[in-house]
Amino acid sequence: MLATILHGPGDVRCEEVSEPKILKPTDAIIKLSASCICGSDLWPYRGANEVTAPLSMGHEYCGVVVEVGSAVKTVKPGQFVVGSFCLSDNTCPHCRFGFQSSCEQREFMTGAQAPYARVPLADGTLVATADMPADDLIPSLLATSDVLGTGWYAADAAGVQEGSTAVVVGDGAVGLMGVLAARQMGAERIIAMSRHKTRQDLALEFGATDIVSERGDAGVARIKELTEGVGAASVLECVGTQESMSQAIASARPGGKIGFVGVPHGVTFDGQNLFFQQKSLLGGPAPVRRFLPYLMDLVVDRKINPGKVFDLELPLADVAEGYKAMDERRAIKTLLRF
Amino acid sequence: MLATILHGPGDVRCEEVSEPKILKPTDAIIKLSASCICGSDLWPYRGANEVTAPLSMGHEYCGVVVEVGSAVKTVKPGQFVVGSFCLSDNTCPHCRFGFQSSCEQREFMTGAQAPYARVPLADGTLVATADMPADDLIPSLLATSDVLGTGWYAADAAGVQEGSTAVVVGDGAVGLMGVLAARQMGAERIIAMSRHKTRQDLALEFGATDIVSERGDAGVARIKELTEGVGAASVLECVGTQESMSQAIASARPGGKIGFVGVPHGVTFDGQNLFFQQKSLLGGPAPVRRFLPYLMDLVVDRKINPGKVFDLELPLADVAEGYKAMDERRAIKTLLRF
Repeated sequence: MLATILHGPGDVRCEEVSEPKILKPTDAIIKLSASCICGSDLWPYRGANEVTAPLSMGHEYCGVVVEVGSAVKTVKPGQFVVGSFCLSDNTCPHCRFGFQSSCEQREFMTGAQAPYARVPLADGTLVATADMPADDLIPSLLATSDVLGTGWYAADAAGVQEGSTAVVVGDGAVGLMGVLAARQMGAERIIAMSRHKTRQDLALEFGATDIVSERGDAGVARIKELTEGVGAASVLECVGTQESMSQAIASARPGGKIGFVGVPHGVTFDGQNLFFQQKSLLGGPAPVRRFLPYLMDLVVDRKINPGKVFDLELPLADVAEGYKAMDERRAIKTLLRF
Repeated sequence: MLATILHGPGDVRCEEVSEPKILKPTDAIIKLSASCICGSDLWPYRGANEVTAPLSMGHEYCGVVVEVGSAVKTVKPGQFVVGSFCLSDNTCPHCRFGFQSSCEQREFMTGAQAPYARVPLADGTLVATADMPADDLIPSLLATSDVLGTGWYAADAAGVQEGSTAVVVGDGAVGLMGVLAARQMGAERIIAMSRHKTRQDLALEFGATDIVSERGDAGVARIKELTEGVGAASVLECVGTQESMSQAIASARPGGKIGFVGVPHGVTFDGQNLFFQQKSLLGGPAPVRRFLPYLMDLVVDRKINPGKVFDLELPLADVAEGYKAMDERRAIKTLLRF
């Protein structure tokens, strides 16, 4: 089959590889309904993470189970499933505490930018729908696997509540999903920081009430202006740079919470500064599995449409162009079809 | 009157100064019932904070109001009061959000290691008792002003709940108060990290269920052993060094919360490490005012006895010995009498 392999910075190729096989009794093989490119795939693509060997790309997935290992009990061939990009047993103490992304057996999904993929820890990871979903729901179901689940976690970690004010730093796909999540959680005011018209429009569609196009100190000043000098109770940091993190911290009110889900690259915090700013920080790879059944229901019941975040659709053969378009910010997020 | 002045590292003196006066209509003057030395007073005493001019020491206080400014409405001469070391108006948005230690008008109390002191923002800061408290309650009421309120905030920020497991890093007075707070909040297991017999004994008296005398990696390994490999949901960091902070973070379970109240000195956090550890951080100067009425009631009703943390009592004239004893860890906390 054809699959996506990253050979080095800027060098991603669609290549012939062998089809995945059951390697452990807890594995499942799925036939993907669609796949996509994640903002975090751009870190190695841009050379921010070292690439020492060819990487099998893709960790967002949904599709139909075609085979399961002998130990798999909860899903069976023919079922439509979604799984988190973090594979987890869903039974260890960390999973039971709601932090499946720190599962004792955690692995990260790979190889999902391909028509078939192996999903380890299938029982803990995969969630099946009751029926085969309609075709037009596929992009939104795919989004629950990571991008929506990650934006949701940012809002959850930032303590978004009914009637609260949330600031979203970052207008990438995750930031836009953070806006959607904050809206679903009942935030009254959702301030999206974005300088790009198409992303601003999508943020407004997903529920943003205000757009701030300034950055850095000017951006923080604008947030303060919009919040009567106070700052926001909840800030979603969806980028991962020092600049975005500083902006996020400065945008929160004392006692406010920052949920950070952009993988930090070159970010440090000064202890004394954090102490006197008196703001709460929680980040990490999102425990999507915690939210997955709920998010899938919202999609199947057509209450949310996160699939709108895909603004470029390509056949798998053109995956390189998909990466390029996202790298150049011509596309927010690329959907791959087989 | 005699008061405590710090002239430089190791050089603290009891000196004649003029009595405090009302400077603003929102001030009150109180006659202190007792005063004490704080662990944070040791930072400048040890030269960790620069001392560029003589410092009027002391920020923990309780006593009787002797005079109020013309704008003061809620307290009057003759009342017994306690106030937080953070002075606040208790009406601004940060105060109403429960973060009085980030009050828009915040000042830090000074000059309270003396028989009389000026308390700015008296209406927002001071809380009066219904009646004049018994003499034997004075040490415990004094403790609510900072050391107990700070330990309480550590437990609150660390999310201690009924039935939960809490680790307390630091066996200074604040750490010991953190143990007491965790017990009051219903923690089932409270692990105090301490290498000193007298402090271990006091920790057990305040409600610790386990003592860990190891430090660093060995200490963390012991915490993991005591928590079935999981780590604690709540960790109270009550020191403020890089070593203690690293120990605190490593002792928490993924998704666990670290409340840090030791003023960080030379502490930095690596963003990516914090991300993958997936632990929540909240610290800062404690918003004692939020907890003060409740804590004072607990003391007056004799439900808690935080005053036991004072293991050395000296007349104000001997304040230099009080600092020395704490610096050399011969005393946990020094009570000063007039």
